[in-house]
Parts: sequence; structure tokens; C-alpha cells
Amino acid sequence: MDWHALHEGEEAKLLQLADRYKLHPLHIEDCQHGGQNAKLEDGDSYLFIVLKPVFTQDDGTVAFGDFDVFIGSGYLITYEEIGCNKLLALVQKVQNHQALSNDQIFYRILDGIVDSYVPVLDAYSEQIDVIEDQVLFDPKPDLLETIFKLKRSFIELRRVLTQTRDLCGHLMRSEDAILDPKLHPYFRDVYDHLSRHIETVEMSRDLLSGALDIYLSSVANRTNQTMKVLTILSTIALPSVATSSIFGMNFEFMPWIHRPEGLIYAGVTSLSITAILVSILKWRRWI
Amino acid sequence: MDWHALHEGEEAKLLQLADRYKLHPLHIEDCQHGGQNAKLEDGDSYLFIVLKPVFTQDDGTVAFGDFDVFIGSGYLITYEEIGCNKLLALVQKVQNHQALSNDQIFYRILDGIVDSYVPVLDAYSEQIDVIEDQVLFDPKPDLLETIFKLKRSFIELRRVLTQTRDLCGHLMRSEDAILDPKLHPYFRDVYDHLSRHIETVEMSRDLLSGALDIYLSSVANRTNQTMKVLTILSTIALPSVATSSIFGMNFEFMPWIHRPEGLIYAGVTSLSITAILVSILKWRRWI
Amino acid sequence: MDWHALHEGEEAKLLQLADRYKLHPLHIEDCQHGGQNAKLEDGDSYLFIVLKPVFTQDDGTVAFGDFDVFIGSGYLITYEEIGCNKLLALVQKVQNHQALSNDQIFYRILDGIVDSYVPVLDAYSEQIDVIEDQVLFDPKPDLLETIFKLKRSFIELRRVLTQTRDLCGHLMRSEDAILDPKLHPYFRDVYDHLSRHIETVEMSRDLLSGALDIYLSSVANRTNQTMKVLTILSTIALPSVATSSIFGMNFEFMPWIHRPEGLIYAGVTSLSITAILVSILKWRRWI
Amino acid sequence: MDWHALHEGEEAKLLQLADRYKLHPLHIEDCQHGGQNAKLEDGDSYLFIVLKPVFTQDDGTVAFGDFDVFIGSGYLITYEEIGCNKLLALVQKVQNHQALSNDQIFYRILDGIVDSYVPVLDAYSEQIDVIEDQVLFDPKPDLLETIFKLKRSFIELRRVLTQTRDLCGHLMRSEDAILDPKLHPYFRDVYDHLSRHIETVEMSRDLLSGALDIYLSSVANRTNQTMKVLTILSTIALPSVATSSIFGMNFEFMPWIHRPEGLIYAGVTSLSITAILVSILKWRRWI
Amino acid sequence: MDWHALHEGEEAKLLQLADRYKLHPLHIEDCQHGGQNAKLEDGDSYLFIVLKPVFTQDDGTVAFGDFDVFIGSGYLITYEEIGCNKLLALVQKVQNHQALSNDQIFYRILDGIVDSYVPVLDAYSEQIDVIEDQVLFDPKPDLLETIFKLKRSFIELRRVLTQTRDLCGHLMRSEDAILDPKLHPYFRDVYDHLSRHIETVEMSRDLLSGALDIYLSSVANRTNQTMKVLTILSTIALPSVATSSIFGMNFEFMPWIHRPEGLIYAGVTSLSITAILVSILKWRRWI
Repeated sequence: MDWHALHEGEEAKLLQLADRYKLHPLHIEDCQHGGQNAKLEDGDSYLFIVLKPVFTQDDGTVAFGDFDVFIGSGYLITYEEIGCNKLLALVQKVQNHQALSNDQIFYRILDGIVDSYVPVLDAYSEQIDVIEDQVLFDPKPDLLETIFKLKRSFIELRRVLTQTRDLCGHLMRSEDAILDPKLHPYFRDVYDHLSRHIETVEMSRDLLSGALDIYLSSVANRTNQTMKVLTILSTIALPSVATSSIFGMNFEFMPWIHRPEGLIYAGVTSLSITAILVSILKWRRWI
Repeated sequence: MDWHALHEGEEAKLLQLADRYKLHPLHIEDCQHGGQNAKLEDGDSYLFIVLKPVFTQDDGTVAFGDFDVFIGSGYLITYEEIGCNKLLALVQKVQNHQALSNDQIFYRILDGIVDSYVPVLDAYSEQIDVIEDQVLFDPKPDLLETIFKLKRSFIELRRVLTQTRDLCGHLMRSEDAILDPKLHPYFRDVYDHLSRHIETVEMSRDLLSGALDIYLSSVANRTNQTMKVLTILSTIALPSVATSSIFGMNFEFMPWIHRPEGLIYAGVTSLSITAILVSILKWRRWI
Repeated sequence: MDWHALHEGEEAKLLQLADRYKLHPLHIEDCQHGGQNAKLEDGDSYLFIVLKPVFTQDDGTVAFGDFDVFIGSGYLITYEEIGCNKLLALVQKVQNHQALSNDQIFYRILDGIVDSYVPVLDAYSEQIDVIEDQVLFDPKPDLLETIFKLKRSFIELRRVLTQTRDLCGHLMRSEDAILDPKLHPYFRDVYDHLSRHIETVEMSRDLLSGALDIYLSSVANRTNQTMKVLTILSTIALPSVATSSIFGMNFEFMPWIHRPEGLIYAGVTSLSITAILVSILKWRRWI
Repeated sequence: MDWHALHEGEEAKLLQLADRYKLHPLHIEDCQHGGQNAKLEDGDSYLFIVLKPVFTQDDGTVAFGDFDVFIGSGYLITYEEIGCNKLLALVQKVQNHQALSNDQIFYRILDGIVDSYVPVLDAYSEQIDVIEDQVLFDPKPDLLETIFKLKRSFIELRRVLTQTRDLCGHLMRSEDAILDPKLHPYFRDVYDHLSRHIETVEMSRDLLSGALDIYLSSVANRTNQTMKVLTILSTIALPSVATSSIFGMNFEFMPWIHRPEGLIYAGVTSLSITAILVSILKWRRWI
Repeated sequence: MDWHALHEGEEAKLLQLADRYKLHPLHIEDCQHGGQNAKLEDGDSYLFIVLKPVFTQDDGTVAFGDFDVFIGSGYLITYEEIGCNKLLALVQKVQNHQALSNDQIFYRILDGIVDSYVPVLDAYSEQIDVIEDQVLFDPKPDLLETIFKLKRSFIELRRVLTQTRDLCGHLMRSEDAILDPKLHPYFRDVYDHLSRHIETVEMSRDLLSGALDIYLSSVANRTNQTMKVLTILSTIALPSVATSSIFGMNFEFMPWIHRPEGLIYAGVTSLSITAILVSILKWRRWI
């Protein structure tokens, strides 16, 4: 029932507690440095757990903070990186619950952090839907940048999710005295949520890399279409240019040029050549 | 023999039963929320199983519903999402069988749901055959959209199949008292069906991603062909344009222009240049 | 010593035997339906094995049939799909051997079926050699179709080989009374053959997907070459067209046009521009 | 407490020690040859460990040296390849610590070497950031060379990191008398660092191969844009060239040519054709 | 101490020995047929090992032969495919060592064969270096052929190396009486060499497939550059052609044509249009 909810900046208190409960120096170092992987480590008489709450940065991008937990018999220490407001609200909500045991408090925080990944995943899914449409109907270069950034985000998100799932897998099978076995199905539930999240990320990554392939195909297709247009243009223009250049030559003796119907003859010749060329190209399925 | 076949909307009854048979709150929550993964979970005195029947939506696309099953000693509870008419028919057919034990009923439902994946897989296979033909002989941009959608469907289908197979793998090895060991070979049979389905999906995904590669190659090929046509056109037209432009210059002193056979000389010159150019290009295999 | 060699169409006999030897209904169903995966299943007192002999269809493509085997103590039942003539010859050859025990007969059939994959693999290898050459020296669109079909064949072949290998792995470690342990090294030998076949298929698939990549590169290369030809053509033609157009203008006051050497001046100018342009392009390595 | 810190060139001493402590000839050979994999091998009464410190070569590229360690009960032998100055500083710093036991010395060296990978990883990360920007906004061919070299570096780095991690995994679970079990959490800490490094490398490789795909898409996009420009140019120029060639023909009987407003008619005709062409192309979304 | 060093063609002797030492008929068959995988098989009282020495064929390509070894208690039989001269030298060198036991002889041969892979790997590495340079600076179609052949070689080499490594893994853990446990570290050493070789092959394959990607990008890049050149050429030529065609029209009433400075006006107009076009293209970053 002894919950010490510390924030970044309260290192002095943390060191005191480390002293009282004989916390391992490496674990204290992890709290101080931040930027840890999500993990669970067995201390001699306690569990040390690093969770990675997600929060939105000022520039709209998503980042992960550190939330460190020590659970021993009779005490719970949480050490929280500043910046994650939603998490703060979560912690306060849990703190108002008087009747909760230490491991129930921990479960609620874990569950809350895992739930906080859902809106992030949803936002990414929507982005992919938009990308898919654009890739097919309006492939522009700035789409490539979006795909690249999203890819980066998925790589990072996947790492956090996998590590947290491994941690939950350990929790739902743990047999030490610190965690009540009655909580196992609850941890299993969190584990299942994380598995589903990871599957969603995998699916999204797959779709994203598919989107890039389709972008390339889409652009190749457009180039092909532009080529065809150019070829058709040339097919139409070149015969008339050639024909009229010929009749523009300054030879004294030229056929048709002194006849009134000469111009019509020339026009018909030119148009016939164009018509024949277009027919050939159509017939060979070249344009 | 005590089968409670509930539908979405009968939550009150579900809660009553949960109370009577001490069903775990997390399992009840799964029934209520829907959108679960296919899974099998051990309750204290019962098995909780989520199956994913497939059904066709109004817009012709395929979706997966939830079908939740609780099997305990002496009772069977099924909870069904509304919308899956075929499944309804299946359940009714099984209900008419008076002599079936609870686990036999469950096997029949499971088998029926797994069989319902077959027409979906067949429809996808046909789509791939069509795509293959189009990709080779008529690569159009809307093909990309079809490939993309199909890819998405396969990702989802594969997930459901894998999870259901894992669940069957558990059933065919289970040693608790709830399921009669005589059913093991039957579950193994379902397991084999699912394995074959998964292999079909894998094969289809492989073919689909191959189709995209071939689409790209096909388009590149057509661009190349269009380029060649344009080059041949230019090879034919440019010499005659150049020649006739030259004889169109207003110089006082020009060769051939005062001779009757001048025009023929010019024509022969122009055609010779074209012929030489085409020969060179053919010889170097450039066109 | 009691070998019942049944063919498709002798279902009545099969059902009689099923009754006599208490064969599992699911296994009988597998025999009747066909299209099974290669597999080994433990019945209560017998082994049920599905093998996949390969045969050539009328249209020259390769297909797999079903060959079902039941081995119990004192009896052997084989059930054969019609259409595989080579297999028929194999079975007859084995039948003439009077002195063979049931498990020896089974080994010979298994070995014969696995050997029958060799010519198929060889035919595919040759096809790949042809594709490799064509892809490099004559990349045509119909090559894509060949690659696609071959890819499909490899996917299927690989599936059959893997399943048969797994089955052999089981046989060479089996410790039940039905198969003589003296046969273990023989099954291991078949296992090794199958492993080598699978490696060949993997190698072929790798080469095939490499061939597609190279096809794309090859086509891109040709497009580049065609582009260069077009650019060189334009570089040569455009200056002369431009120059002669200029001297074809109807201005009263034009330089050079009244001089006898004017035409030569114009020609030299035009050729010089072309020469300079070509030099620049060569120097910048653009063509 | 008996630490023999040898450098490359002190082979005679090494052989003496090998004789005294009965070191395995293969291990001595590994020290002499260099270019070993990072590894841990159990000698009869000692551990032989090869570490791979990183150092920067004269041409700015990164290379790996060999650092060989023998830990026995009561003695520590380190054999160091010359060239790694930073490592020298590290070793000296550790040597000044009088109170350290052999295994603590070893841990400090291991930790120092693993920490020395961080600046290398950071430098690579920055390079990837630069590449990403260039690939999107300024795709030049020399970028390909950078990507290629970086890819090579990652392959090598990954190999060293994986091997060192495997080695640490062994250390943190080792149960022989040579390493104090109190060091296990410290080795686990190094193991975690290495895992994080490997994840960073994997992530970087993923991003790099994504960068290459995007480079290709980017170039394809630019080609498409250039094609469109060429097509638009042709669309604008060809009608006016064709029209004016027609009115340049030397027919006696031509419409408009004797009228004062004829030139305007011709100009309007030419511009109208261009306008219609451009409209069609825009409408069909071809340019 | 009883070493029977047989060559291909001494089958009669082999059959005699098979009879004397009760060698398994399948092993004898393997010797006779050749083309085996590298493998180790336990006979009842001996080990049967197939090694794959590498040799250079007459056409400069690399091929693998078979070298079969039977080690029993008190005898060693080696059966060697003709064609591998280097191996012959190795065997003779080992034969001159009188004092070696059978398992030491075997170790030396194994070590010699594994060492013989090194020059092959080195030759391939050099080829890749050459390919990398060419792919970046001079992407020609015949490079594709080289890449394809090298890819094939790596696939085969990898297979031999992996199988030989698996075989060594077995040897270094074997606990039967035939191989002296003192040799275990030596076999482990060979195992490490092979692991390093396999890593080199993997790294090379990775680089090779990267080279192909870069080839494609390189060619796409060149096509883009050629396109730009063509566009610039057209941008420069088309305005002057159009302008001069206009002033070449035979209208009676044309502006400027009767003035002395008319030609200059026309030239300035034409050059201005070109200048404006080039500026626009530069500004929009299209060329």
C-alpha cells in the first residue's frame, strides 16, 4: 500500500528509496538516464519494470517517454518522465482508488499505457488510407516523404510494442510472491491487446511498403502514358511538317505547284500518311 | 446438453449465465465488445473460444464477425454477432440434431465456420487468375487498385486463419475433461483444413506480389516499345524534313534547283539517309 | 503380406477393408475426396499415409495425384488415383517381388514416387536456363508469362516436397511396431533426397525471382539506349533544320544569300553546331 | 590480480604465458592471426574471449581490431592489436584502478568497448538523415555510392554486434568459478546495450533500403516530369511549325496568302490547334 | 592406422572393403554415384562422411567434387573423385605423416578442404568489388550477366558450406568412441572457419542483390539525364524553328520582311522565347 509516485526531478527521493529498499544501482541509473527499452528485470526482492507511455510532441509527432516501476512486497515506486500529461491524469485517477493493492495499481497503469497506443495506431491507419488513395490517383513526390516518415514511426512503434508484450508475457507467467496470481488473466488480456497492436503495425508496414511499390508502378504508368501522347503528337505532326517542307523547296520543276488543286493533293497526301501511321501503331498495339 | 444459443442483443441473458456458471468478467467483456481475435482461453472450469465466421457485406466485400463459445461440463453457451446469416443456418441445422453432445455441437460449428472460408478463398483465387492475365496483356492503372485491395484482404484473412489454426492445435492436444478425446482426430482434420487454407493464402500472396512486379516490368516494356516507335518515326521523318528545309533556303546559288531532275535527286538523298540510319539502328539492335 | 492394391473406382472394396481393419472414417473420406496434402497420420493400429505422385497432364503441364497407403500389422492397403501411368508400372514392378514384406513394399513405392520428381525438377532447371539467356539477350513480354507460370509451379512443387519430407522425417524416427527399424536408414536416404530436391526448388525460385529483376533492369537499359539514340538523332537533325529554316525566311535583307559561297557557309555553320553539341554531350557523358 | 596487458609485437611473452598457464595452441594462433570473430571459448581452466574494438582508420572509415582476453583463476591476459588508441586509454584508465579483481577489469574493458560503438552508430544515423533528405529533394547518382558503402558498413557492424551479444549472453548465464556471479546483472546490462545497438542497426538498414526504393521512385518521378515538359513543349511548337510550313509551300494557288489579314488567320489557326491540344491533354490528365 | 586411400575407378577395392567392414549398401551407393550433399551418417560401427572439395574446371568456373570418408575403429577409408588435383596433393602430404592416427588424418583432410574454400571466396569478393564500381560508374548490360552467374555460384557455395558446417557441428559434439575427444576443439575451429565463410557468402549475396538494385537506379538515372538533354535540345531548337518557319511563309503582307533590321528582330524574338522557356524550366526545377 506504500506507493511512492515520483516525477523526473525528484532524484534525491529516488536515491533515498533505493537505499531503503536496496534497489540495484543499475536500475537507478536506468531511471536517471531515460531512453530505456521497455523491459522487466528481476531484482533480488522486487521487480523493476520500464514502460514506454506515448505522448504527442509540440510539433505533432509522436514520442515515447519512460515510466519506471519498482514493485516489492509492501511497496510500489513509480518514476515518471515529465511531459506525458495524459499519463499524469491516469496516475491521479488510480491514486484516488484507495482500496487498490500495489499490483492492482500497477496493472491499471500498464493497462492505461497500452490503451494509450490505440489512438496513435488509429491515426496511422488513417494516414495509410490517405496514402493509398493518393498513390493510386495522384502520385506526387511529397508522398514519398510521408511514406518515409511513417515507415520510421512504425519501426519505432513496433519495437516498443514488442518489448512491452515480452514484458507482459513474463508477467502473466510469473510465479514469484510479488504479483497475485489472480492478476494473470488480466496480464494475459493486456498481452492479447499488445499482440493485436503488433499485428496491426505489421499489417500497416506491409501496406506501406506495398504503397511504395504501387507508387513506382503508378509513376511508370504515367510516364508510359505521357510517352504515348508524345508519340501520337509526333505521328500527327511529322508527316504534315515533312510534306509541307517538301513543297516548300525552291526547285524550279515541282509537280502540282502550278495547279489550282495542288494544295488539296498535298493535304490529302499528308493526312493519308498520318492515317496510315496511326492505323499501324493501333494495330500493333504500340500506342 | 444444456445449449444456450444467444445472439447479439441478448446481453442480459449472457450476464445471467455468466453469474450462474462463474464466467470470467474479461470473457464477458470480449463478447460484448466484439472485434476480438480468434482465440482459446482456459477459464477455471470451462473453455472460452472466439471464432471468426466470414460473411459478405452489402457492398460485396468480405468481413469477419465474432462467434463466442463457452464450453463447460454440462453446458454450452454460444454468443453470436448479428449479420452472419449463413452461420445462423448452420447453428439451426446443428440444433435440430437432438442426439449431439456439447462438444460434438461445438465441433460441427467449428467445422462449418472453417468450411465457410472455402468459397471466399476460391473467389480470391479467381480474382488472381484475372489479375495475372490483365497484368500481362493489358496493364492498366486500375489494376493497381485491385491488387492493393486484394493484398489487404489477404493480410486480414491470413490473420484469422492462423489464429483459428492455433486454436485448433490446442483443441486437438487438449487433455482436460471438457472435450472428449475421441474428437481429437476430428479437430486434427479441421487443423489440416486450416493449414491448407493458410498455404493457399500464402501462395496467393506470393502470386499477387509477383503480379505487381510483372505489372511494373510490363509497363516498362511498353514504355520501351513506345520509345522505339517514336525513335523510328523520328528516324524516318527527320532526314526528309532536314533535306527539304535545306532546299527551301532562299540562296541564289543552290545546286540542282534549276534542273528538272533536281527534285528526284533530293528525294533519293533524303530516303538514302533514312535507309542508312534505320540500317545502323537495326544493326546495333537499338530499335 | 496381405497387400490390397486398389484403384480409384474400387470404393466398395475400400469400405469393406475399412470395416475389416477398423480404419478411421476421416481417412476413408480423405481417400475418396482426393486433393489431400501429403501427410502421415497415426490410426490406432495402423499408419495412414498420403503420397503425391507427379504425372504429366495432356496439355504438357505437371500435376500431382493422390496415393493413399494404410500399413497395419499384417496388411497393406494402397488406394491409387487413376491417371498416373508411371506409378502403375512402379506398383506392378513391386508386386512381382514376392519376397518383400509390407514395409519394404511401402519403402519401394515411396522411393519410386520421390524418384519420379527428378525429371520434373530437371525440366524446370532447363526452362530456367533458357529464361536466363532470354532475359539477358532478348527480353520480350511473353517471357513474363513463362516466369509467372513457372513461379506458380515451384510454389506447388515446394509444398508437396516439404510435406513429403516431413512425413519421411517421421518415418525415419518412428518407433512403433509396424515399420521395421532396419528400414530407418532407407527412409533417411529418401529424406535426404527430398531435402536436396527442396534445396533445388529454393535455388530455382531464387534464380527465377532474380531473372525477373534482371528482366526489369534489362528493359530499363534498352529504354535508356533507345533514348540515347533519339537524343543523338535530334542533336544531329535539329541544328540543320533550324539553320535551313532560318535561311528559308523571306526577309529581303539576308546575309550570304546572294553570294555563291553562301550555301557552303550555311552548311559549315550547321555542321559546326552539331559537332559542338555532340562534343558537349560526349564530354558530359550524357549520351 | 595478475594482469598481463600485452600488445601486438609481444608474441614472445604471449608464448611464455601460454606455456605457464597451458593455453590451448588454437587460442594462441587466434591471437597471432587476428581478424577473428568476436567469440567466447571455454579452455580447460580459463575463458578465451575475442572482442572487437572499433577504431577510425586514417581515411576516415571505421574498422574493427582484435582484443583477446584470457581469464583464468588468478590471472588475466589481454592481447591487443596496435592501432586502437582509444582502447589504449581505456586500458590505462582501468589499470590505475588498483582495487579491481580480474573479472571486474574484464567487465570494464568489455563495457568500454561496447560504449565505443555508440559514436559510430550516431555518425551512421546522421548519414542516413542526410541521405533521406537528398533522396527526396536532390537524387543524384553519387548518393547511390554512399548508400552502397553504408550498407556494407552496416553488414559488418551487425556481425560484430551480434557475435559480441552472443558472447555476453553466455557470460551473464555462465556458472563456472572464474566469473563472480555478482557480475551477472552487469553483463546483462551490456547485453541489453548490445541488443539496443543491434536494433538500431536493423532499423538503419531498413531505412537505408527504403531510401534506395525511394531514390528509384524519385528518379522515375523526375523522368515523368521531364517527359511531361517535353510533351508540352512539343504540343506548343508542333502546330505552329506545321501551320507555318504549310503556308511556306510554293504552290501558286494558296488561300489567304494574298490578303493582308492572311497572316493573322494563320496565327489564330495555329494557336487554336495548340489550345485545343493542351485542353485535351489536360482533360485526359495526360500532362 | 589402416588407411585405404581409394580413387574413383577403384570400385572393386571399395566393394571388398565394404564386405570386410560391413559398410552399409546405401553408403557404398553414395560413393559410386557421386554428386552427394556434404553429410555425416552414423553406420553401426563407423562414421560415413561426404566432403565437397572445390576445384577449378577447365573453363575457369568452380565446381565441387565428392570425397567420401569411412572412419571405423582401426581403419580409415577415403574414396576420392578424380579431378581435384589440389586435394591429391593434400592427401599425399598427410600420407607422409607416419605418426598420425586415423582421426587426426581425417581432421587434416577436413581442415585442408575447408581451407581450399578461401581462395574461391576471395576471388568472388574481388569480383563483387569490380561489379560495385561498374554498377555505379558504367552500368552496362553485360554486368547483369555477371551478377546472375555470381548469384548462382553463391547459392551453390552456400549450400556446400552450410552442410559442411552442420557436419562439423556434429563432429565437435560427437561422443562415440571413434573420434578422440581431444580433437573436439579442433573441429570447433573448423566449425568457426565455416561459420565465417558462410557469413562472408551471406554478406556477398546481400551486396550483390544491392548491386542489382543500384544498377536499376543507375540506369533510371541515366535515362532521366538523357531525357533532360533531349528536352533542353528541344527547348533551344523548337522556338528558332517555329520563328523561322513563320517568317518563311509566303504571305504577301508580312511584318518586318522588307526592312533591313527585320532579320535581327526575328533573331531576338526567337532567342528571347528560348531564354524565357529555359528560365521557366530551371525555375520549376524541371531540367
